Amino acid sequence: MGRVYLDWNASAPLRPAARDAACAALEVTGNPSSVHGEGRAARQLVEQARDAVAALTGADPRNMIFTAGGTEANALALSPLTQAGGKRCARLLVSAIEHPSVLAGGRFNAADIETIPVDPNGVVDLAALERRLESSREGVLVSLMAANNETGVIQPVRAAADIVHRHGGVLHVDAVQAAGRIALDIAALGADLMSLSAHKIGGAKGAGALIRHDESLQIDALVRGGGQERGARAGTENVAAIAAFGAAAATAAACLAAEVARMAQLRERLEAGIRAATPDAVIFGSAVARLVNTTLVALGGAKAETLVIGFDLDGVAISSGSACSSGKVAPSHVLAAMGVPAELARGAIRVSTGPATTNAEIDRFLEVWKKLVQRLSTKEKRGLAA
Amino acid sequence: MGRVYLDWNASAPLRPAARDAACAALEVTGNPSSVHGEGRAARQLVEQARDAVAALTGADPRNMIFTAGGTEANALALSPLTQAGGKRCARLLVSAIEHPSVLAGGRFNAADIETIPVDPNGVVDLAALERRLESSREGVLVSLMAANNETGVIQPVRAAADIVHRHGGVLHVDAVQAAGRIALDIAALGADLMSLSAHKIGGAKGAGALIRHDESLQIDALVRGGGQERGARAGTENVAAIAAFGAAAATAAACLAAEVARMAQLRERLEAGIRAATPDAVIFGSAVARLVNTTLVALGGAKAETLVIGFDLDGVAISSGSACSSGKVAPSHVLAAMGVPAELARGAIRVSTGPATTNAEIDRFLEVWKKLVQRLSTKEKRGLAA
Repeated sequence: MGRVYLDWNASAPLRPAARDAACAALEVTGNPSSVHGEGRAARQLVEQARDAVAALTGADPRNMIFTAGGTEANALALSPLTQAGGKRCARLLVSAIEHPSVLAGGRFNAADIETIPVDPNGVVDLAALERRLESSREGVLVSLMAANNETGVIQPVRAAADIVHRHGGVLHVDAVQAAGRIALDIAALGADLMSLSAHKIGGAKGAGALIRHDESLQIDALVRGGGQERGARAGTENVAAIAAFGAAAATAAACLAAEVARMAQLRERLEAGIRAATPDAVIFGSAVARLVNTTLVALGGAKAETLVIGFDLDGVAISSGSACSSGKVAPSHVLAAMGVPAELARGAIRVSTGPATTNAEIDRFLEVWKKLVQRLSTKEKRGLAA
Repeated sequence: MGRVYLDWNASAPLRPAARDAACAALEVTGNPSSVHGEGRAARQLVEQARDAVAALTGADPRNMIFTAGGTEANALALSPLTQAGGKRCARLLVSAIEHPSVLAGGRFNAADIETIPVDPNGVVDLAALERRLESSREGVLVSLMAANNETGVIQPVRAAADIVHRHGGVLHVDAVQAAGRIALDIAALGADLMSLSAHKIGGAKGAGALIRHDESLQIDALVRGGGQERGARAGTENVAAIAAFGAAAATAAACLAAEVARMAQLRERLEAGIRAATPDAVIFGSAVARLVNTTLVALGGAKAETLVIGFDLDGVAISSGSACSSGKVAPSHVLAAMGVPAELARGAIRVSTGPATTNAEIDRFLEVWKKLVQRLSTKEKRGLAA
């Protein structure tokens, strides 16, 4: 067996249709802003992709702004100048488990950003959200992810939207990890703004999108000086990555039900195996609805970095949390927000699968898991004996 | 003969080495921030490209920030928080012929931006620059392009740098169109910051870079919430486009002398042909040093849009100015700044070549040029007779 890749939440393998689209688009020389045939050919690729990505979310293609990724989409969304009905958003509320690019708060001053707690299962506290909105006299932008990237816990976006809208606020939904794993109709979710990333659904790294539900919502461009994306994001479009994004979105939309069923079966196999081998392992968020592809598990006394390196040496790629922060050895802010003791949290590893993951790969993970846990307990025994 | 592409300044065809690098990188699944083997493989591609792009400009690879393109690099550079020696840049001076993404002024307020005029040849007025700097009591950021994208006129960057530094200012150089066409040593030019774009040198659309000469210069990140690019630009790296950028930069650096000689010969053929066919045509900036690949030419009474469409119908792709603004029919701000009458400016077309352009393609352009000019004068005669 070759390498086993179980870190799809960090970056999913490119779907074959996306690879074909990207490599074909690389040969299209024109600049999409040029009026000649070569330019029009490039423009057509961008607009076809816009239709496909819009279809994945039920959005109007005209309301989609292509960006360089989910992080830029979040940064673009989070501005005090984001407004609906002429009302400026003076404050930003974010859940405590958001991606670092949301926690950074975009163009809001730190003093204008507040955090909404989550419960021990990692679900946002809607009562707390409502209290903060009630106490606010200004326009509020709320940012809540559709599903958490570390635990996979699905957030009550529709209920949050109802609360936010009742108080005249605007809801931004970071759907980067949820896309391709749950249905994401922007109207059904009640999101005013939604961020997506191409490489989480099998597109190429380097593309993302910010989607508006309603074009009356003002977007505050981060990069200006060019009419691209209707003025909301200047700069020559990344035609190849956008074409791949479209192809990946089309496949993800068409295959959603089948892929979800497949990943659910894989997760069942994975978690049953973990529970059988290590009954004291904690699978976070397992009491609530989670993405079918994500398992965050910890064993007391283990160190995630050691496990990730051990798995890597045995040919299995997993993560110790989100890739963006995996360079630094810091406890997960998500688990801290859930009230997980630091001692347990520091052992948490994330296993994330995709539709191409096989049963044999899950079994290989379990084999290495048992081996590493065995080594760990031997070490512990040695430690106790010393 | 197939289509003839003479719009390299809008977007250059992908170099074969860049295509191979991009398509290979698309297969690398890992996120460069992940610690496992797949992540490290992606990281290696990014760092190899960083070395190659740095080598093109003589910069330290650690001082390069990859962006989604030249426009984002310009936007990232232009911030009042850009500072050297602890001195904040309260004002921004830009030449009147800068790219729209520089004229937009990044994060400076419109009231803090001033424009420096150019002479009739399209060369920045250094005396005017010096006067503005003398009259400024605050820290100043100056943005001057290395060569203009419409006329190809090369700007006196070294002399401007000396003036800017004498007054304690910071110089940003938009080298997007100059890269691969003139030598661009960041130290020799005296630039503090330099912007590059991949797709102008034969890389893929969707990558660019902002380069610092000295790491003590503060960069004010546009997108935050992730440690990528040493905190200066958050978000998963566009591995494929960055790998292609590196491959294109390596080829451009290795072949610079040969490619410049080739394009100079093509331009000689092109402009001699234009002068022979239409002695009253005006080639802008022809009295001063220009990029060897760029010719901006106008004929009184012609309309650029009509010519561009006419050429396109005859299989030749050219531009009526920069691609970013070619959607709108407005006179070139570059020609206006040079004092070219609107009547002449509205007929200006840009022919831009690359190292793969052939003599036969130049001859085909000249053939169509003669035909369209003939048609134009027939119409004029008809107009006079009517």
